[in-house]
Amino acid sequence: MNPMQADTRLRRLPERGGRDFDEACRIIDAAKLCHVGVHLDGQPYVLPMACARQGRDLLLHGSVASRLVRHLADGHPCCVTVTHLDGLVLARSAFHSSMNYRCLMLFGRARLVAEPAARSAGLDALVEHLLPGRLADLRPPTRKELNATALLSVPIETFTTKVRSGPPEDPASDVGLPAWAGVVPLATVAGSAQDAPDLATGTARPAYLEDY
Amino acid sequence: MNPMQADTRLRRLPERGGRDFDEACRIIDAAKLCHVGVHLDGQPYVLPMACARQGRDLLLHGSVASRLVRHLADGHPCCVTVTHLDGLVLARSAFHSSMNYRCLMLFGRARLVAEPAARSAGLDALVEHLLPGRLADLRPPTRKELNATALLSVPIETFTTKVRSGPPEDPASDVGLPAWAGVVPLATVAGSAQDAPDLATGTARPAYLEDY
Repeated sequence: MNPMQADTRLRRLPERGGRDFDEACRIIDAAKLCHVGVHLDGQPYVLPMACARQGRDLLLHGSVASRLVRHLADGHPCCVTVTHLDGLVLARSAFHSSMNYRCLMLFGRARLVAEPAARSAGLDALVEHLLPGRLADLRPPTRKELNATALLSVPIETFTTKVRSGPPEDPASDVGLPAWAGVVPLATVAGSAQDAPDLATGTARPAYLEDY
Repeated sequence: MNPMQADTRLRRLPERGGRDFDEACRIIDAAKLCHVGVHLDGQPYVLPMACARQGRDLLLHGSVASRLVRHLADGHPCCVTVTHLDGLVLARSAFHSSMNYRCLMLFGRARLVAEPAARSAGLDALVEHLLPGRLADLRPPTRKELNATALLSVPIETFTTKVRSGPPEDPASDVGLPAWAGVVPLATVAGSAQDAPDLATGTARPAYLEDY
Protein backbone atom coordinates (compact mmCIF):
# COMPACT_ATOMS: atom_id res chain seq x y z
CA MET A 1 0.00 0.00 0.00
CA ASN A 2 1.07 3.53 -0.64
CA PRO A 3 1.26 4.71 2.96
CA MET A 4 -0.10 8.11 1.97
CA GLN A 5 -3.19 6.72 0.28
CA ALA A 6 -5.34 7.26 3.34
CA ASP A 7 -6.09 10.89 3.89
CA THR A 8 -4.92 11.42 7.43
CA ARG A 9 -4.88 15.20 7.47
CA LEU A 10 -6.07 16.40 10.86
CA ARG A 11 -8.84 18.79 9.99
CA ARG A 12 -10.93 18.94 13.16
CA LEU A 13 -9.29 20.17 16.35
CA PRO A 14 -5.78 19.53 15.02
CA GLU A 15 -4.31 20.64 18.36
CA ARG A 16 -5.57 17.35 19.80
CA GLY A 17 -3.97 15.26 17.08
CA GLY A 18 -0.64 13.65 16.55
CA ARG A 19 1.40 11.17 14.60
CA ASP A 20 3.76 10.01 17.31
CA PHE A 21 4.56 6.29 17.09
CA ASP A 22 5.10 5.91 20.84
CA GLU A 23 1.72 7.52 21.53
CA ALA A 24 0.09 5.09 19.08
CA CYS A 25 1.77 2.18 20.87
CA ARG A 26 0.61 3.37 24.28
CA ILE A 27 -2.99 3.54 23.04
CA ILE A 28 -2.81 0.01 21.61
CA ASP A 29 -1.01 -1.40 24.63
CA ALA A 30 -3.73 -0.16 26.97
CA ALA A 31 -6.54 -1.67 24.85
CA LYS A 32 -8.19 -5.05 24.74
CA LEU A 33 -10.48 -4.19 21.89
CA CYS A 34 -10.34 -2.28 18.65
CA HIS A 35 -12.95 -1.54 16.00
CA VAL A 36 -12.02 -2.63 12.50
CA GLY A 37 -13.68 -1.00 9.52
CA VAL A 38 -13.84 -2.51 6.06
CA HIS A 39 -15.92 -1.90 2.96
CA LEU A 40 -17.61 -4.95 1.53
CA ASP A 41 -20.16 -5.10 -1.30
CA GLY A 42 -20.91 -1.37 -1.03
CA GLN A 43 -21.45 -1.41 2.72
CA PRO A 44 -19.12 -0.32 5.53
CA TYR A 45 -18.74 -2.81 8.38
CA VAL A 46 -17.27 -2.03 11.79
CA LEU A 47 -16.32 -5.06 13.80
CA PRO A 48 -15.01 -5.23 17.36
CA MET A 49 -11.91 -7.41 17.59
CA ALA A 50 -9.29 -8.21 20.18
CA CYS A 51 -5.98 -6.55 19.43
CA ALA A 52 -2.39 -6.60 20.53
CA ARG A 53 0.86 -5.03 19.47
CA GLN A 54 3.96 -6.85 18.34
CA GLY A 55 6.75 -4.38 17.71
CA ARG A 56 5.65 -2.14 14.85
CA ASP A 57 2.54 -4.18 14.00
CA LEU A 58 -0.97 -4.31 15.36
CA LEU A 59 -2.21 -7.89 15.53
CA LEU A 60 -5.74 -9.17 14.99
CA HIS A 61 -7.07 -12.67 14.82
CA GLY A 62 -10.25 -14.40 13.87
CA SER A 63 -11.79 -17.45 12.35
CA VAL A 64 -10.58 -18.40 8.90
CA ALA A 65 -14.27 -18.99 8.14
CA SER A 66 -15.22 -15.36 8.85
CA ARG A 67 -16.11 -13.37 5.77
CA LEU A 68 -14.69 -10.16 7.22
CA VAL A 69 -11.48 -11.86 8.31
CA ARG A 70 -11.05 -13.26 4.80
CA HIS A 71 -11.71 -9.80 3.38
CA LEU A 72 -9.01 -8.37 5.64
CA ALA A 73 -6.65 -11.20 4.74
CA ASP A 74 -7.17 -10.38 1.06
CA GLY A 75 -5.44 -7.07 1.72
CA HIS A 76 -8.30 -4.63 1.22
CA PRO A 77 -7.91 -1.23 2.91
CA CYS A 78 -9.02 -1.16 6.51
CA CYS A 79 -9.17 1.27 9.40
CA VAL A 80 -8.42 0.04 12.90
CA THR A 81 -9.64 2.42 15.58
CA VAL A 82 -8.75 2.08 19.26
CA THR A 83 -10.62 4.34 21.67
CA HIS A 84 -10.29 4.81 25.40
CA LEU A 85 -13.04 6.89 26.96
CA ASP A 86 -11.47 8.62 29.96
CA GLY A 87 -14.18 10.96 31.15
CA LEU A 88 -17.17 13.19 30.61
CA VAL A 89 -16.16 16.83 30.31
CA LEU A 90 -19.01 18.90 31.65
CA ALA A 91 -18.90 22.53 30.58
CA ARG A 92 -21.55 25.15 31.36
CA SER A 93 -23.02 24.65 27.90
CA ALA A 94 -23.73 21.58 25.81
CA PHE A 95 -21.65 23.04 23.01
CA HIS A 96 -18.46 23.20 25.07
CA SER A 97 -19.06 19.90 26.83
CA SER A 98 -16.91 17.07 25.56
CA MET A 99 -15.26 13.82 26.44
CA ASN A 100 -11.75 13.00 27.51
CA TYR A 101 -10.38 10.22 25.36
CA ARG A 102 -7.36 8.70 23.69
CA CYS A 103 -7.94 7.49 20.16
CA LEU A 104 -5.85 5.91 17.44
CA MET A 105 -7.03 5.58 13.84
CA LEU A 106 -4.71 3.25 11.97
CA PHE A 107 -5.04 2.94 8.20
CA GLY A 108 -3.57 0.23 6.09
CA ARG A 109 -3.98 -3.24 4.76
CA ALA A 110 -3.77 -6.35 6.88
CA ARG A 111 -1.30 -9.09 6.04
CA LEU A 112 -2.15 -12.71 6.72
CA VAL A 113 0.65 -14.17 8.83
CA ALA A 114 1.00 -17.68 7.45
CA GLU A 115 4.51 -18.73 8.42
CA PRO A 116 4.02 -21.18 11.32
CA ALA A 117 6.59 -19.79 13.77
CA ALA A 118 5.49 -16.19 13.20
CA ARG A 119 1.87 -17.19 13.53
CA SER A 120 2.50 -19.01 16.81
CA ALA A 121 4.45 -16.07 18.18
CA GLY A 122 1.69 -13.66 17.17
CA LEU A 123 -1.11 -15.73 18.68
CA ASP A 124 0.94 -16.02 21.86
CA ALA A 125 1.38 -12.24 21.88
CA LEU A 126 -2.40 -11.82 21.70
CA VAL A 127 -2.89 -14.09 24.72
CA GLU A 128 -0.21 -12.33 26.73
CA HIS A 129 -1.50 -8.90 25.74
CA LEU A 130 -4.98 -9.64 27.04
CA LEU A 131 -3.74 -11.11 30.31
CA PRO A 132 0.01 -11.02 30.97
CA GLY A 133 1.18 -14.28 32.49
CA ARG A 134 -1.68 -16.35 31.12
CA LEU A 135 0.19 -18.04 28.29
CA ALA A 136 2.28 -20.32 30.53
CA ASP A 137 -0.89 -21.90 31.94
CA LEU A 138 -2.47 -22.86 28.63
CA ARG A 139 -1.99 -26.07 26.74
CA PRO A 140 -0.46 -25.47 23.29
CA PRO A 141 -2.93 -25.08 20.42
CA THR A 142 -3.65 -28.16 18.33
CA ARG A 143 -2.96 -28.22 14.62
CA LYS A 144 -6.71 -28.14 13.98
CA GLU A 145 -7.13 -25.04 16.15
CA LEU A 146 -4.23 -23.31 14.43
CA ASN A 147 -5.67 -24.13 11.03
CA ALA A 148 -8.98 -22.58 12.06
CA THR A 149 -7.38 -19.32 13.23
CA ALA A 150 -6.21 -16.49 11.00
CA LEU A 151 -3.58 -14.13 12.36
CA LEU A 152 -3.53 -10.69 10.75
CA SER A 153 -0.92 -7.99 11.06
CA VAL A 154 -1.39 -4.29 10.27
CA PRO A 155 1.75 -2.11 10.18
CA ILE A 156 1.62 0.87 12.55
CA GLU A 157 2.66 3.30 9.85
CA THR A 158 -0.21 5.45 8.63
CA PHE A 159 -2.20 6.69 11.57
CA THR A 160 -3.44 9.61 13.57
CA THR A 161 -3.86 9.82 17.30
CA LYS A 162 -6.21 12.19 19.04
CA VAL A 163 -6.21 12.85 22.76
CA ARG A 164 -8.26 15.14 24.94
CA SER A 165 -7.62 15.45 28.64
CA GLY A 166 -8.20 17.97 31.36
CA PRO A 167 -11.04 20.20 32.49
CA PRO A 168 -13.74 21.86 30.37
CA GLU A 169 -12.79 25.07 28.60
CA ASP A 170 -15.72 27.41 28.88
CA PRO A 171 -15.54 30.82 27.25
CA ALA A 172 -15.10 33.64 29.77
CA SER A 173 -18.70 34.70 29.23
CA ASP A 174 -19.92 31.33 30.58
CA VAL A 175 -17.66 30.94 33.61
CA GLY A 176 -19.94 33.00 35.83
CA LEU A 177 -22.98 30.83 35.16
CA PRO A 178 -24.27 28.89 38.16
CA ALA A 179 -23.92 25.41 36.61
CA TRP A 180 -21.38 23.03 38.10
CA ALA A 181 -18.52 22.31 35.71
CA GLY A 182 -15.81 19.71 35.76
CA VAL A 183 -14.90 16.19 34.74
CA VAL A 184 -16.38 12.81 35.61
CA PRO A 185 -13.50 10.37 35.10
CA LEU A 186 -14.38 7.04 33.49
CA ALA A 187 -12.26 3.93 33.52
CA THR A 188 -12.57 0.24 32.71
CA VAL A 189 -11.92 -1.84 35.80
CA ALA A 190 -11.73 -5.56 36.47
CA GLY A 191 -13.98 -7.17 39.07
CA SER A 192 -13.18 -10.26 41.12
CA ALA A 193 -12.41 -13.30 39.02
CA GLN A 194 -15.24 -15.84 38.83
CA ASP A 195 -14.31 -19.53 38.85
CA ALA A 196 -15.71 -21.63 36.01
CA PRO A 197 -18.43 -23.99 37.27
CA ASP A 198 -16.40 -26.98 36.06
CA LEU A 199 -13.22 -25.86 37.82
CA ALA A 200 -11.67 -28.66 39.90
CA THR A 201 -12.04 -27.99 43.63
CA GLY A 202 -8.88 -26.51 45.05
CA THR A 203 -7.58 -25.00 41.81
CA ALA A 204 -5.70 -21.88 42.88
CA ARG A 205 -6.23 -18.52 41.26
CA PRO A 206 -2.99 -17.62 39.52
CA ALA A 207 -0.99 -14.63 40.73
CA TYR A 208 -1.42 -12.78 37.41
CA LEU A 209 -5.14 -12.61 38.16
CA GLU A 210 -4.62 -11.07 41.56
CA ASP A 211 -2.34 -8.41 40.07
CA TYR A 212 -4.69 -7.64 37.23
CA MET B 1 -32.44 2.83 1.70
CA ASN B 2 -33.48 -0.68 0.96
CA PRO B 3 -33.28 -2.04 4.50
CA MET B 4 -32.00 -5.36 3.20
CA GLN B 5 -29.10 -3.84 1.29
CA ALA B 6 -26.66 -4.56 4.07
CA ASP B 7 -25.88 -8.22 4.35
CA THR B 8 -26.71 -8.93 7.97
CA ARG B 9 -26.74 -12.70 7.82
CA LEU B 10 -25.25 -14.09 10.99
CA ARG B 11 -22.58 -16.40 9.74
CA ARG B 12 -20.18 -16.70 12.66
CA LEU B 13 -21.52 -18.11 15.94
CA PRO B 14 -25.16 -17.40 14.98
CA GLU B 15 -26.30 -18.68 18.38
CA ARG B 16 -24.90 -15.47 19.88
CA GLY B 17 -26.73 -13.25 17.43
CA GLY B 18 -30.11 -11.62 17.30
CA ARG B 19 -32.31 -9.05 15.70
CA ASP B 20 -34.39 -8.03 18.66
CA PHE B 21 -35.21 -4.32 18.71
CA ASP B 22 -35.38 -4.12 22.50
CA GLU B 23 -31.97 -5.74 22.79
CA ALA B 24 -30.58 -3.20 20.33
CA CYS B 25 -32.07 -0.39 22.42
CA ARG B 26 -30.58 -1.75 25.63
CA ILE B 27 -27.14 -1.84 24.04
CA ILE B 28 -27.42 1.76 22.84
CA ASP B 29 -28.94 3.02 26.08
CA ALA B 30 -26.00 1.65 28.08
CA ALA B 31 -23.42 3.27 25.78
CA LYS B 32 -21.77 6.67 25.69
CA LEU B 33 -19.75 5.96 22.59
CA CYS B 34 -20.21 4.22 19.29
CA HIS B 35 -17.87 3.63 16.38
CA VAL B 36 -19.12 4.89 13.03
CA GLY B 37 -17.75 3.42 9.83
CA VAL B 38 -17.91 5.09 6.45
CA HIS B 39 -16.14 4.65 3.14
CA LEU B 40 -14.61 7.77 1.69
CA ASP B 41 -12.33 8.06 -1.33
CA GLY B 42 -11.58 4.35 -1.34
CA GLN B 43 -10.67 4.19 2.34
CA PRO B 44 -12.72 2.95 5.31
CA TYR B 45 -12.82 5.30 8.30
CA VAL B 46 -13.95 4.34 11.80
CA LEU B 47 -14.70 7.27 14.05
CA PRO B 48 -15.67 7.25 17.73
CA MET B 49 -18.73 9.41 18.34
CA ALA B 50 -21.09 10.06 21.22
CA CYS B 51 -24.46 8.43 20.70
CA ALA B 52 -27.94 8.40 22.14
CA ARG B 53 -31.27 6.88 21.32
CA GLN B 54 -34.47 8.74 20.59
CA GLY B 55 -37.29 6.29 20.08
CA ARG B 56 -36.48 4.22 17.02
CA ASP B 57 -33.47 6.31 15.99
CA LEU B 58 -29.85 6.38 17.01
CA LEU B 59 -28.57 9.96 17.25
CA LEU B 60 -25.12 11.27 16.44
CA HIS B 61 -23.79 14.77 16.32
CA GLY B 62 -20.71 16.55 15.16
CA SER B 63 -19.30 19.69 13.67
CA VAL B 64 -20.84 20.79 10.39
CA ALA B 65 -17.23 21.43 9.33
CA SER B 66 -16.24 17.78 9.75
CA ARG B 67 -15.67 15.96 6.51
CA LEU B 68 -16.94 12.66 7.91
CA VAL B 69 -20.02 14.32 9.39
CA ARG B 70 -20.79 15.89 6.01
CA HIS B 71 -20.28 12.50 4.36
CA LEU B 72 -22.75 10.95 6.80
CA ALA B 73 -25.18 13.82 6.27
CA ASP B 74 -25.03 13.19 2.53
CA GLY B 75 -26.68 9.85 3.17
CA HIS B 76 -23.90 7.45 2.28
CA PRO B 77 -24.13 3.97 3.81
CA CYS B 78 -22.68 3.72 7.29
CA CYS B 79 -22.25 1.14 10.02
CA VAL B 80 -22.66 2.20 13.63
CA THR B 81 -21.20 -0.31 16.07
CA VAL B 82 -21.73 -0.17 19.81
CA THR B 83 -19.66 -2.55 21.92
CA HIS B 84 -19.64 -3.21 25.64
CA LEU B 85 -16.76 -5.36 26.83
CA ASP B 86 -18.05 -7.26 29.86
CA GLY B 87 -15.24 -9.64 30.66
CA LEU B 88 -12.32 -11.83 29.74
CA VAL B 89 -13.36 -15.46 29.34
CA LEU B 90 -10.39 -17.60 30.30
CA ALA B 91 -10.63 -21.15 29.07
CA ARG B 92 -7.92 -23.81 29.46
CA SER B 93 -6.78 -23.13 25.89
CA ALA B 94 -6.27 -19.96 23.89
CA PHE B 95 -8.62 -21.28 21.24
CA HIS B 96 -11.61 -21.55 23.59
CA SER B 97 -10.81 -18.34 25.45
CA SER B 98 -13.07 -15.48 24.54
CA MET B 99 -14.62 -12.26 25.75
CA ASN B 100 -18.01 -11.50 27.18
CA TYR B 101 -19.56 -8.62 25.31
CA ARG B 102 -22.71 -7.01 24.00
CA CYS B 103 -22.47 -5.62 20.50
CA LEU B 104 -24.81 -3.90 18.08
CA MET B 105 -23.97 -3.40 14.41
CA LEU B 106 -26.45 -0.97 12.89
CA PHE B 107 -26.49 -0.48 9.12
CA GLY B 108 -28.16 2.33 7.30
CA ARG B 109 -27.86 5.88 6.14
CA ALA B 110 -27.85 8.86 8.42
CA ARG B 111 -30.39 11.63 7.97
CA LEU B 112 -29.46 15.22 8.74
CA VAL B 113 -32.03 16.57 11.19
CA ALA B 114 -32.51 20.15 10.02
CA GLU B 115 -35.91 21.14 11.37
CA PRO B 116 -35.15 23.43 14.35
CA ALA B 117 -37.48 21.91 16.95
CA ALA B 118 -36.45 18.35 16.08
CA ARG B 119 -32.81 19.32 16.15
CA SER B 120 -33.12 20.97 19.54
CA ALA B 121 -34.93 17.95 20.94
CA GLY B 122 -32.30 15.62 19.55
CA LEU B 123 -29.35 17.60 20.88
CA ASP B 124 -31.10 17.73 24.27
CA ALA B 125 -31.53 13.96 24.12
CA LEU B 126 -27.80 13.56 23.56
CA VAL B 127 -27.02 15.68 26.64
CA GLU B 128 -29.50 13.79 28.80
CA HIS B 129 -28.32 10.44 27.51
CA LEU B 130 -24.73 11.11 28.51
CA LEU B 131 -25.66 12.41 31.96
CA PRO B 132 -29.31 12.27 32.97
CA GLY B 133 -30.36 15.44 34.77
CA ARG B 134 -27.64 17.58 33.24
CA LEU B 135 -29.75 19.42 30.70
CA ALA B 136 -31.62 21.57 33.22
CA ASP B 137 -28.32 23.10 34.42
CA LEU B 138 -27.06 24.22 31.01
CA ARG B 139 -27.69 27.52 29.33
CA PRO B 140 -29.53 27.10 26.03
CA PRO B 141 -27.36 26.87 22.92
CA THR B 142 -26.83 30.04 20.94
CA ARG B 143 -27.85 30.29 17.31
CA LYS B 144 -24.19 30.26 16.32
CA GLU B 145 -23.58 27.06 18.30
CA LEU B 146 -26.63 25.41 16.76
CA ASN B 147 -25.51 26.39 13.29
CA ALA B 148 -22.12 24.82 13.92
CA THR B 149 -23.60 21.49 15.06
CA ALA B 150 -25.00 18.78 12.81
CA LEU B 151 -27.50 16.34 14.29
CA LEU B 152 -27.72 13.00 12.52
CA SER B 153 -30.29 10.28 12.94
CA VAL B 154 -29.90 6.63 11.92
CA PRO B 155 -33.03 4.45 12.01
CA ILE B 156 -32.69 1.35 14.20
CA GLU B 157 -34.00 -0.95 11.48
CA THR B 158 -31.27 -3.02 9.87
CA PHE B 159 -29.02 -4.40 12.55
CA THR B 160 -27.59 -7.41 14.27
CA THR B 161 -26.82 -7.82 17.92
CA LYS B 162 -24.31 -10.25 19.30
CA VAL B 163 -23.97 -11.12 22.96
CA ARG B 164 -21.73 -13.53 24.84
CA SER B 165 -22.03 -14.03 28.56
CA GLY B 166 -21.20 -16.68 31.10
CA PRO B 167 -18.25 -18.95 31.81
CA PRO B 168 -15.79 -20.49 29.37
CA GLU B 169 -16.90 -23.61 27.54
CA ASP B 170 -13.97 -25.95 27.42
CA PRO B 171 -14.30 -29.27 25.65
CA ALA B 172 -14.52 -32.22 28.05
CA SER B 173 -10.99 -33.26 27.11
CA ASP B 174 -9.63 -29.96 28.51
CA VAL B 175 -11.61 -29.72 31.76
CA GLY B 176 -9.14 -31.91 33.63
CA LEU B 177 -6.16 -29.68 32.79
CA PRO B 178 -4.58 -27.90 35.75
CA ALA B 179 -5.08 -24.34 34.41
CA TRP B 180 -7.44 -22.05 36.27
CA ALA B 181 -10.52 -21.21 34.21
CA GLY B 182 -13.23 -18.62 34.65
CA VAL B 183 -14.19 -15.06 33.91
CA VAL B 184 -12.62 -11.72 34.81
CA PRO B 185 -15.53 -9.25 34.70
CA LEU B 186 -14.80 -5.86 33.18
CA ALA B 187 -16.90 -2.73 33.57
CA THR B 188 -16.65 0.97 32.93
CA VAL B 189 -17.01 2.91 36.15
CA ALA B 190 -17.12 6.57 37.04
CA GLY B 191 -14.65 8.05 39.50
CA SER B 192 -15.24 11.03 41.78
CA ALA B 193 -16.20 14.18 39.91
CA GLN B 194 -13.39 16.73 39.59
CA ASP B 195 -14.30 20.41 39.89
CA ALA B 196 -13.17 22.65 37.03
CA PRO B 197 -10.34 24.96 38.16
CA ASP B 198 -12.48 27.99 37.29
CA LEU B 199 -15.49 26.77 39.29
CA ALA B 200 -16.81 29.44 41.66
CA THR B 201 -16.10 28.58 45.27
CA GLY B 202 -19.11 27.03 46.93
CA THR B 203 -20.71 25.69 43.75
CA ALA B 204 -22.47 22.53 44.85
CA ARG B 205 -22.14 19.26 42.98
CA PRO B 206 -25.52 18.42 41.53
CA ALA B 207 -27.42 15.37 42.76
CA TYR B 208 -27.30 13.71 39.33
CA LEU B 209 -23.53 13.52 39.71
CA GLU B 210 -23.72 11.80 43.06
CA ASP B 211 -26.12 9.21 41.65
CA TYR B 212 -24.06 8.58 38.57
